[in-house]
Amino acid sequence: MSKAKVLLVGMGGVGSIAAYSLEKAGKSEVTAVVRSDYDTLIKEGFELQSCDFGKVDVFRPTNVCKSVDEAVSKHGPFDFVVFTMKNTPDVQPLNPFIEKCYHDDLGIVLLQNGYGIHKAVLQKFPSAYVISGVSMISSTLYGRTVKQVGPESVKIGVCDNGKTDYGKQEKKCKEFIELYSTDKNDVTFDENVNYTRWRKLVYNATINSSCALTNVDIGRLELFGGVDSIVRPAMAEVLAIAKSDGVELPESIMEFMIRSDDGEWYAPSMLVDIRKGNYTEYQVILGNALDVAKENGIAAPVLTVLYNLLHVIQWRTMEEKHRFTLPEKRPLPQDNFKIEFK
Amino acid sequence: MSKAKVLLVGMGGVGSIAAYSLEKAGKSEVTAVVRSDYDTLIKEGFELQSCDFGKVDVFRPTNVCKSVDEAVSKHGPFDFVVFTMKNTPDVQPLNPFIEKCYHDDLGIVLLQNGYGIHKAVLQKFPSAYVISGVSMISSTLYGRTVKQVGPESVKIGVCDNGKTDYGKQEKKCKEFIELYSTDKNDVTFDENVNYTRWRKLVYNATINSSCALTNVDIGRLELFGGVDSIVRPAMAEVLAIAKSDGVELPESIMEFMIRSDDGEWYAPSMLVDIRKGNYTEYQVILGNALDVAKENGIAAPVLTVLYNLLHVIQWRTMEEKHRFTLPEKRPLPQDNFKIEFK
Repeated sequence: MSKAKVLLVGMGGVGSIAAYSLEKAGKSEVTAVVRSDYDTLIKEGFELQSCDFGKVDVFRPTNVCKSVDEAVSKHGPFDFVVFTMKNTPDVQPLNPFIEKCYHDDLGIVLLQNGYGIHKAVLQKFPSAYVISGVSMISSTLYGRTVKQVGPESVKIGVCDNGKTDYGKQEKKCKEFIELYSTDKNDVTFDENVNYTRWRKLVYNATINSSCALTNVDIGRLELFGGVDSIVRPAMAEVLAIAKSDGVELPESIMEFMIRSDDGEWYAPSMLVDIRKGNYTEYQVILGNALDVAKENGIAAPVLTVLYNLLHVIQWRTMEEKHRFTLPEKRPLPQDNFKIEFK
Repeated sequence: MSKAKVLLVGMGGVGSIAAYSLEKAGKSEVTAVVRSDYDTLIKEGFELQSCDFGKVDVFRPTNVCKSVDEAVSKHGPFDFVVFTMKNTPDVQPLNPFIEKCYHDDLGIVLLQNGYGIHKAVLQKFPSAYVISGVSMISSTLYGRTVKQVGPESVKIGVCDNGKTDYGKQEKKCKEFIELYSTDKNDVTFDENVNYTRWRKLVYNATINSSCALTNVDIGRLELFGGVDSIVRPAMAEVLAIAKSDGVELPESIMEFMIRSDDGEWYAPSMLVDIRKGNYTEYQVILGNALDVAKENGIAAPVLTVLYNLLHVIQWRTMEEKHRFTLPEKRPLPQDNFKIEFK
């Protein structure tokens, strides 16, 4: 059997381990799309320090390209496209990437944070095979070194498009699980992706965003009062919104998540993003959940304030990254000034 | 007539201009208590670049001391003590200062931000003459230079102690106004201090804190959506709390405050504090207002989240300023770890 062709977009901490797992399993050939780390990956490769795979001095996926266009013309068509990049649709939506590699039989795997992230894809590609993966992994790229300290455990399920036969969609999903599974990682079929995503949001929408906004790790957040004053009420809101969406999470999940980094002065990913001056995933983590809250008439005052603050910060980051320039003199409302993106 | 003796604590942007006004008026002798800028003030004096008084090459109050103790023993007793330092009761309460210079006839002037800041003073000194001053001034100390760009306008009123004859309290207050007035500043007797303080809170509790939490000036806050999404709902909460406290502010005050820095990429004081790594006045600006909200059963979800976030940040600042040290390993709840202040 010839190997499956997998296009993987985003070689960060999660993406690098995913690429390695896929090639290690031996059933697929990975073409990775990399932007900022392209030269490093081509010239030196990445080093892996992995609790799953041990030390790997030099890892480089079979093919490395700078863009999806290049990948398709040199190595396409692909059986699967796997998105492992940060999920910031306000800055970098996925559909333009998908457009360039799409065909009727493509499996689109979203191995990314957030809730309801398949919706935008299905809106543009109504009959697509969309596969949703929630990865539990603690892996970060520093320079050319991938440090994976937590074992990879991924739940993968179908985002039913409501058009194609469900059996066919499930088959596609299970094909990918087959490609991805090694004797090291734990990749399981997820009957209820929605549940898994809401569950993860209990942590991400609350602890992640509170730490990011106060610039303290979860240990300090707790000692300084923020877990009781912000995280708990915010978690209760996530549970209420999830319930309105048909997902009943047990109340005990709150305590479980609060205690999940015990013993560590752990800096959640959104805090790391803020500290690095990077964009945050506030839109898919908080924004999409708040859309559900609005639709279903659920009050979420705490999450709303956190979202609105992170929104302002995202625009500050855009300015810092020179996505737009503001005039020297502050415009007044009557000037009808509009920010123009470069 | 011999000059009145005024003890002034805090020679920042506001305090320096207040000290200069008091001495310029010619009716009082100022003893200033300065800590971090003591050497500069003694050796070089401050330079004033003042829209009210023009350029003053070297200004030094009559007496400069390092502590209230020193001031009292060398130059006391005082007729008035004027607090112009930042108002951070969680870090530096006023009562220990007052204790050192208190006598039955002392006028205690609070020329500081916040709501209800006289309460703690009257709790400890129930028959004290407490005078409340709300200063509208834009003045900042950079190195040894005080840049005053907005004219000084101060409203000064009585915080009735409910024990001493009100006429006597009012007389004390008017004595201070007399000492403070020059032909440059605008110092008026305030019949309703409470109104004036709530009015200022409409700006400070909302724009100040939103800018501080997002690290953008008011111009950017508006362009990036934060004025509509955070400031307006927060202002509506301030108005509701004020109303429950007997102060009916017109709705138009919201727009007035939002437009008050028009044309300027203005960084409000709390944002400047955050950028400098200083403590913020979140406790007297937000905390005291939320106490009233709680007492009167007024919902204030937006202000509550802003307060809780700023609270965590205040503790982060305390750690940065080495007020306490955390153990290398994050303590668990069962460790019953308590932060110990140095």
